[in-house]
Amino acid sequence: MNATKELREVEKILKKDFTNEKIISNLYGHIFNTNGKKIRAKLNLISSYGTKSKNRYLLAAVIELLHTATLVHDDVVDDSPERRGKKSVNSMWSNAHGVLIGDYIYSKAFIHMVNIKNISILEELSSATNDISQGELMQLDALGNLDITLNKLKKISYFKTGRLFEASARTGGLLSKSSVMQLDYLGDCAKNLGILFQIRDDLLDYSIDKKIGKPNFQDLKEGKITYPFYYAYKKANLTQKKELKKALGKKSINQKTILTLIIKLNGIKKTEELASKYRKDAILLAKKIDNLKIQKEMIELIDQSLNRKK
Amino acid sequence: MNATKELREVEKILKKDFTNEKIISNLYGHIFNTNGKKIRAKLNLISSYGTKSKNRYLLAAVIELLHTATLVHDDVVDDSPERRGKKSVNSMWSNAHGVLIGDYIYSKAFIHMVNIKNISILEELSSATNDISQGELMQLDALGNLDITLNKLKKISYFKTGRLFEASARTGGLLSKSSVMQLDYLGDCAKNLGILFQIRDDLLDYSIDKKIGKPNFQDLKEGKITYPFYYAYKKANLTQKKELKKALGKKSINQKTILTLIIKLNGIKKTEELASKYRKDAILLAKKIDNLKIQKEMIELIDQSLNRKK
Repeated sequence: MNATKELREVEKILKKDFTNEKIISNLYGHIFNTNGKKIRAKLNLISSYGTKSKNRYLLAAVIELLHTATLVHDDVVDDSPERRGKKSVNSMWSNAHGVLIGDYIYSKAFIHMVNIKNISILEELSSATNDISQGELMQLDALGNLDITLNKLKKISYFKTGRLFEASARTGGLLSKSSVMQLDYLGDCAKNLGILFQIRDDLLDYSIDKKIGKPNFQDLKEGKITYPFYYAYKKANLTQKKELKKALGKKSINQKTILTLIIKLNGIKKTEELASKYRKDAILLAKKIDNLKIQKEMIELIDQSLNRKK
Repeated sequence: MNATKELREVEKILKKDFTNEKIISNLYGHIFNTNGKKIRAKLNLISSYGTKSKNRYLLAAVIELLHTATLVHDDVVDDSPERRGKKSVNSMWSNAHGVLIGDYIYSKAFIHMVNIKNISILEELSSATNDISQGELMQLDALGNLDITLNKLKKISYFKTGRLFEASARTGGLLSKSSVMQLDYLGDCAKNLGILFQIRDDLLDYSIDKKIGKPNFQDLKEGKITYPFYYAYKKANLTQKKELKKALGKKSINQKTILTLIIKLNGIKKTEELASKYRKDAILLAKKIDNLKIQKEMIELIDQSLNRKK
């Protein structure tokens, strides 16, 4: 059985719910009705290949619950109308519902992870959850900040995305009692994969393509500076800077004009180069993983992340 | 040293922060600058009297962090402009900031509690956190619902308030290795105390008094049916029902008229009777606690909660 097939088992745990309160089942059902890619759960399952622990699927479900809770809260934070091609909780119900069902999912993840009874796993996941919120706060604080540095952008990508990828791999390794050195290879490989995944996300947002299931140019419209904008702005002359600045944070923009300008200023090309660098590092680290099945599937995951269209 | 003095030590832990990100320190500082009553932390300290565990203050800080995270999120949910006499995070910054710093504080609580390395304590606190979010969701769903039952109101009071009081006492008992029976007395006593505390809160909201540090009649204005309204509405005739219904969820109301009506319909009196019932049960349970120092301070806490003016 490979990790993709095993995700079915994880989904069963995810969809099971404790409550008999109708409002909670409704919200919960709405959120878990559509299946996301579950790349973090997959990464976790891959990293724990070989262990006979009865908690393997439960741990993968915990990872997916944590991720989902952050998505639900992000939609409130970004005021997003959609998620995975469906209405977001905040747009279908309210911000209040989004905040509270997010808390419900977070704490459910904590209940499950406590049941695994492994302090190292608990340490890794509680620290990752804290780092994610830090990443999101840094990003929120950086909205519209044209002076943002490349280092800060990288820190945000790591905290808000890379960190949970890293924790997914490390906790998988912890469950299967990997050595400290192998845990580091797993974790560092996944960290690079996560940042790569985020960069690809940033690139997809700068594309005129409806297939990704969410509106494009969202980052730009929200005033969020991501790599394509960052690189373009750095290279822009004064007139071009003005034009880019004008578009940042504006709800209605001429998408073609902006995209053409960003392409012209190498914003896309430089971001793709950055993605290649993270891909290369991730592959190098994957090759140090001594379990060949894990190594192979990690490399597949890295290339899927680079090439994904949504 | 008594629990009130020990709270100083807890405050030191609370005010210490990990981050060097300015936005996070600013938000964190704003939230922990004012000292709340910390009744949950106090309850926890009282319940763990006698143990030599080095984690006593840390556990009390965890309880207070969890509680604070729920307050920050509640202010987003209720769109509250103030908290503890200062501007709320959502009104001073934004809803987005409130959501994310709440998540930050939650996960910080989890980091600390994992460091205590006691699975029973982790189970109790993760389950309590989940129950709180359920209580909040039930309350949100019940907004404006004039058909709400007394049982549902009691369930909401327990989940959103009583549950964390219960967990504060139980985890204190767990830390000091109390017997199963003593844990139950501690927990049940604290549960009743928590519900009593919530009922007193509901009563304070139906008073024309500026000393409580938050605006009055908030519950009514938000469409939240609490005990005073519930009892009054049940006894009201058709004309009075109409009048009460009209005020529910309205931002501007004639406070004196509504309060007079609710008093006339025994809404306050019946709620006070309910509070007395919870007080009585809490005291009975406190008397079963075999540590006399704990027993005495629990009873003091119960009477302070009943008589508090803010």
